[in-house]
Amino acid sequence: MKRIAFIGLGVMGMPMCCNLIKAGYPMAVYARRPETLKKVVAEGAEAKSSSAEASKNADVIITMLPDSPEVEAVVLGPSGVLEGARPGSILIDMSSIAPSASKRIAARLGECGVRMLEAPVSGGQPGAIAGTLSIMVGGDQADFEECEEILKVMGKSVVRVGGIGAGNTVKLCNQIIVALNIAAVGEAFSLGTKAGVDPAVIFSAIRGGLAGSNAMDAKIPLVLERDFDPGFRIDLHIKDLANALQTGRDLTVPLPFTSLIMQVLQALKVESKGDLDHGAIMTFFEELAEVTISK
Amino acid sequence: MKRIAFIGLGVMGMPMCCNLIKAGYPMAVYARRPETLKKVVAEGAEAKSSSAEASKNADVIITMLPDSPEVEAVVLGPSGVLEGARPGSILIDMSSIAPSASKRIAARLGECGVRMLEAPVSGGQPGAIAGTLSIMVGGDQADFEECEEILKVMGKSVVRVGGIGAGNTVKLCNQIIVALNIAAVGEAFSLGTKAGVDPAVIFSAIRGGLAGSNAMDAKIPLVLERDFDPGFRIDLHIKDLANALQTGRDLTVPLPFTSLIMQVLQALKVESKGDLDHGAIMTFFEELAEVTISK
Repeated sequence: MKRIAFIGLGVMGMPMCCNLIKAGYPMAVYARRPETLKKVVAEGAEAKSSSAEASKNADVIITMLPDSPEVEAVVLGPSGVLEGARPGSILIDMSSIAPSASKRIAARLGECGVRMLEAPVSGGQPGAIAGTLSIMVGGDQADFEECEEILKVMGKSVVRVGGIGAGNTVKLCNQIIVALNIAAVGEAFSLGTKAGVDPAVIFSAIRGGLAGSNAMDAKIPLVLERDFDPGFRIDLHIKDLANALQTGRDLTVPLPFTSLIMQVLQALKVESKGDLDHGAIMTFFEELAEVTISK
Repeated sequence: MKRIAFIGLGVMGMPMCCNLIKAGYPMAVYARRPETLKKVVAEGAEAKSSSAEASKNADVIITMLPDSPEVEAVVLGPSGVLEGARPGSILIDMSSIAPSASKRIAARLGECGVRMLEAPVSGGQPGAIAGTLSIMVGGDQADFEECEEILKVMGKSVVRVGGIGAGNTVKLCNQIIVALNIAAVGEAFSLGTKAGVDPAVIFSAIRGGLAGSNAMDAKIPLVLERDFDPGFRIDLHIKDLANALQTGRDLTVPLPFTSLIMQVLQALKVESKGDLDHGAIMTFFEELAEVTISK
């Protein structure tokens, strides 16, 4: 069985790591916080003193970090993965980062004979706990096949979508659509509600038709209950859309709607809503119209 | 069985009228074009010389017209419905018009003892032919119950969403969301495709998750085949969004995203794409990025 190193034991990484331990994989870990290390050691992992040390005897090194700078620091920085990883090992970066950063890191690793897959996920903490994430993998087909069994411990849907960069690109497409579909619902329901129609009735009247979406089905019941507990935080959605806009600049792809929803998210952050679920995008439109989409 | 008059025998109205005739309703019709009248008379309708004449002996008068001005002209204008309709009869306006126009017409009819339901539909010509439209009804509960049987001949989902104006309001909510969900898909897939990812792969990777929508499921397969035959024409979507923006002004509901997608639709009209299916909204983003979302 492949020996795994796991770095990035946050709300997502911790349950993903624990699922791999339960599946029987020998696990080395590194974390800055002693209490995090303690917790995962209790599950059966071996604590190491740095990312380099954790990577030393690993066949597969998994990172699950907030954004591109953190991945670059942990992988390429001092006492990082690259200092410890042996040639022939594979880094699976499961963070959601800029595709350009992903390609840059893969190129640097390649110079040292370390392979890389990117495997951003969707499905949130519940999916991480249940091992039912959707995983969008970018990288070589052979490397993907070598790691598929490991990825399937963490995900229900594990799809290779192309070469390195493609995984994070697909994740960005996903995040653009999710943000805009929530905005569409927020704007439309603010109009309908202010016109005097019961929003629950609007929901039941249109959800089965062409306007129906998984975002509407997920978020309208929550907004009706005024439940904005994350879920997926607005701050994280800002991070993803910043990467989308950067990618648009890199490739000269104008993104007028993404650009506009990014401003909406910034406005919500100004209102200290960065820690709320992204369903709270709808509150931007409620405030514009001075109306509340509730039961 | 109620005697029906039907005015507005276009691509939607004709099959709706024919379904009512098949269901056994005595039917009077008026149309300006002799060939239209001839066709529906062959189905069993009785041709009349004006909207007023068609309405004279009817219990229920149905109108299915392009927009508010046409409905106001046919209902309130010279030789119109109101000149012929007897007190106690009911107008069911199944056009998609501005909620304010709908309320205005209902008020004017009410002064003469004629009741009104508004019952805009979604489902397009295939739904009209199959009798499987979704019908969003606004008006009094008692009037709704009186006409429910008739509406169920034309629609699979027949829901009363509130008083007069509510039906068209819900329709506008629906149209805002549909336009924006198509735009979201167009913008995201243009980015992903220009980044080198196969759009069919993006589709299969994200459609089951939070980004999934009925608009994506309906339109991505068509754009991949470069099939922009209507379906629902961009010109009609412009009409609906004009009514949405007007309603937003009436109620002081700012609609930044609807406003932006309206400009996109106008740009497409400049390119002579008004007669294409609204799936062609995606071509706006393709052209911005100089990329083609195709197989």
